Amino acid sequence: MQGNWSRIFGELKELIGIPSVSAKNQSISECANFLKNLLESYGFSVSFLESPTGKPAVYAEKKGEQGSILLYNHYDVQPPEPLEEWKTDPFELVERDGMLFGRGVSDNKGEIIARLAAVDCVEKVLGQLPVTVKWLIEGEEEVGSPGIPDIVSRNKGLFKGVLGCMWEGGDIDRSGPNLYLGVKGMLYIELTLRTAKADAHSMYAPIIENAAEKMLKIIRMIKDERGRVKVPGFYESVAKPTAAEKRLMKSLRKSAREYADSLGVERLAVEGSQVAEKLVYEPTCNIAGLYSGYTGPGSKTIVPSTATVKIDFRLVPNQDPLKLLKTIKKILPKDVDVKVYTVSYPARISPENPLVKAAVDAAVQVYGKRPSVLPNMAGTGPLYHFVKAGIPTAMLSALAHPGSKLHAPNENIYREHFIKSILHHALVFTKVGGRA
Amino acid sequence: MQGNWSRIFGELKELIGIPSVSAKNQSISECANFLKNLLESYGFSVSFLESPTGKPAVYAEKKGEQGSILLYNHYDVQPPEPLEEWKTDPFELVERDGMLFGRGVSDNKGEIIARLAAVDCVEKVLGQLPVTVKWLIEGEEEVGSPGIPDIVSRNKGLFKGVLGCMWEGGDIDRSGPNLYLGVKGMLYIELTLRTAKADAHSMYAPIIENAAEKMLKIIRMIKDERGRVKVPGFYESVAKPTAAEKRLMKSLRKSAREYADSLGVERLAVEGSQVAEKLVYEPTCNIAGLYSGYTGPGSKTIVPSTATVKIDFRLVPNQDPLKLLKTIKKILPKDVDVKVYTVSYPARISPENPLVKAAVDAAVQVYGKRPSVLPNMAGTGPLYHFVKAGIPTAMLSALAHPGSKLHAPNENIYREHFIKSILHHALVFTKVGGRA
Repeated sequence: MQGNWSRIFGELKELIGIPSVSAKNQSISECANFLKNLLESYGFSVSFLESPTGKPAVYAEKKGEQGSILLYNHYDVQPPEPLEEWKTDPFELVERDGMLFGRGVSDNKGEIIARLAAVDCVEKVLGQLPVTVKWLIEGEEEVGSPGIPDIVSRNKGLFKGVLGCMWEGGDIDRSGPNLYLGVKGMLYIELTLRTAKADAHSMYAPIIENAAEKMLKIIRMIKDERGRVKVPGFYESVAKPTAAEKRLMKSLRKSAREYADSLGVERLAVEGSQVAEKLVYEPTCNIAGLYSGYTGPGSKTIVPSTATVKIDFRLVPNQDPLKLLKTIKKILPKDVDVKVYTVSYPARISPENPLVKAAVDAAVQVYGKRPSVLPNMAGTGPLYHFVKAGIPTAMLSALAHPGSKLHAPNENIYREHFIKSILHHALVFTKVGGRA
Repeated sequence: MQGNWSRIFGELKELIGIPSVSAKNQSISECANFLKNLLESYGFSVSFLESPTGKPAVYAEKKGEQGSILLYNHYDVQPPEPLEEWKTDPFELVERDGMLFGRGVSDNKGEIIARLAAVDCVEKVLGQLPVTVKWLIEGEEEVGSPGIPDIVSRNKGLFKGVLGCMWEGGDIDRSGPNLYLGVKGMLYIELTLRTAKADAHSMYAPIIENAAEKMLKIIRMIKDERGRVKVPGFYESVAKPTAAEKRLMKSLRKSAREYADSLGVERLAVEGSQVAEKLVYEPTCNIAGLYSGYTGPGSKTIVPSTATVKIDFRLVPNQDPLKLLKTIKKILPKDVDVKVYTVSYPARISPENPLVKAAVDAAVQVYGKRPSVLPNMAGTGPLYHFVKAGIPTAMLSALAHPGSKLHAPNENIYREHFIKSILHHALVFTKVGGRA
């Protein structure tokens, strides 16, 4: 493969060079066309899948000996701003000190090229792909994947019978690669209440309601002082960890100290042994924003007339964000305005899925150690649309590292991780096809 | 007096015409000099009392037959902005539909001219002032009277033995004039806490402390859900209403409906009969501002690392703002930062004071009904410096009305109230001197 490095580097450089910023609707068609041509040059049959938003997803397929797997990636990237913080041009791939820099190199154009190189490598070695590779590369992941539900449901035929879907990567740190079998869901709401037409002079505090005070009571209707969510039924539907999942949980190697340092806190709110447990299994109700009354510098003597709180709930299987929303609306006073920003379902697949096993075995060979495999990330992602459609979907590869600066200036990956990712994918294709 | 109207109107016009905005340090000396000349032209002996801030207070004195009373006013005004909302020039006195418009006409240059006209009127009728009038007119009330403590303590000799001090006015509404025998005190603090060096991605909510949540608990250390202040000793020193005060309380005529309408609420937080009771006697702990995390439009998934609350306490006799501050600092966790914006003492004088009795009797004669007299306002003011120095001080006259727009564009008073204020002061001087 070393002999191919200049070709692989050149392809990655071309892909990074296209500033496909979905938030600005910039170079989207250009990037989709570039990928179509590139994939076709490797023998893929390629088409564009319509999205209701007008940004096409690239669909590529290459026949293999038996069975099929699905790959998911996205060809759009985050805006590069603030530009002055970049040490080199964000849209020019640069290699320095064993690292590759450029917008999207980690999230996730690097992985697209690594997967393509893996397909090529396996074909060259075995003469033919052992498994059919189906590949969906959407163009609006960085703006919330609004087209995905429609794209998945309209194209069920294409994805039918796949062994599973490898989502864009997990991550890798000093202890080795981390794979995730799912994501938490989310309900993000904003509650606003008004107690009067306008703020009042605070000398009237003894006789009128204070909106901030009222909001504190509203918050306590949702969550008690110890952090326990009080919405009826919230914990009832939570799936119990399976025996296999419990075994998985032992694979997390990141220490409480590492978490605390990276989060800038002296110590975590929970004991070391509980950290992974809570990150994976605990549904949350987090105050993300809160404001009422005068929030400028200095003092102003008013009784606030409005108050707002932004709350994000992270949900675990089998919690339902829409059911939760309905219950919240039922328990809150009618005069509290509820605005909904995000509704996203949790997803988790079985560690017993053959694709998962192949990815883990391949990782052991490539990285020389077992990857950590968690039932789900602490974060949220749209892969649940695939899981709901019956396609076992997980983050089964690793490229980003803790310093990758995804979405930030100087986004980067290690060249070494990139090479290992190619090998890892090549081995997965081989194993899934029953050839290793 | 009608014959003198053009002279009185002219003097008020000249005084309003000086844009003595203390916040901008504008026309302060000019206004002090104008008043000195004007008061001297009426036979007052006038001097400037030094303030540590450099803005002199005008001190004027005119000998009378027996005893002495002190008048308090200020010659500075609030900035006129926003200028575009004024219907006429803020610094030009205009009479329209029985009302007088101009910055300071209500707060409180109108009262200065009314009091001067009253002195002149009494002298002309009786041949001599029945009581010595001492008059302090400071120049920085609109920026918090920072010089007053020093001015009062340095000039105790001047004020010694006065029967009492008439502060700038109470107010007048459809039911008649309202006098106040004191003010509430205030402690205004801002509490800030930090739980981490930076906000974290909200997927980490299960393992780190949330600053907003922590602040809710801090607030509950100060005040419970029902609004009861939990700071030890808070209610212990509160003075019990005297029998005379209880009788006074029956004089409030403003209805709960009027309060609710003017505050823009459907109904008050307390029952009708409790409104006056609470406004006068209840010490408060009011959340004036609260913010944490993301407060912009839309959603952002973070665990906030800082939270801030602004709280104003309104205090009643004999609560001590500095003692309260000390206790609060003692009960709060050490890592909560406490910033102090205002420390102001409550004050209340006896309704049995002869000056109070004279003011009430004079009001009955001038307005044809008993004024309402409350033990103190619901608001705060610096007259407690006088009370502490042994000078019984109260708001014993009325000029502002509910639509006076003090501090706002189109500040105004009724010409009728202005004339009655002259008569009322004239009668007070006469009664205090034992001549009526």
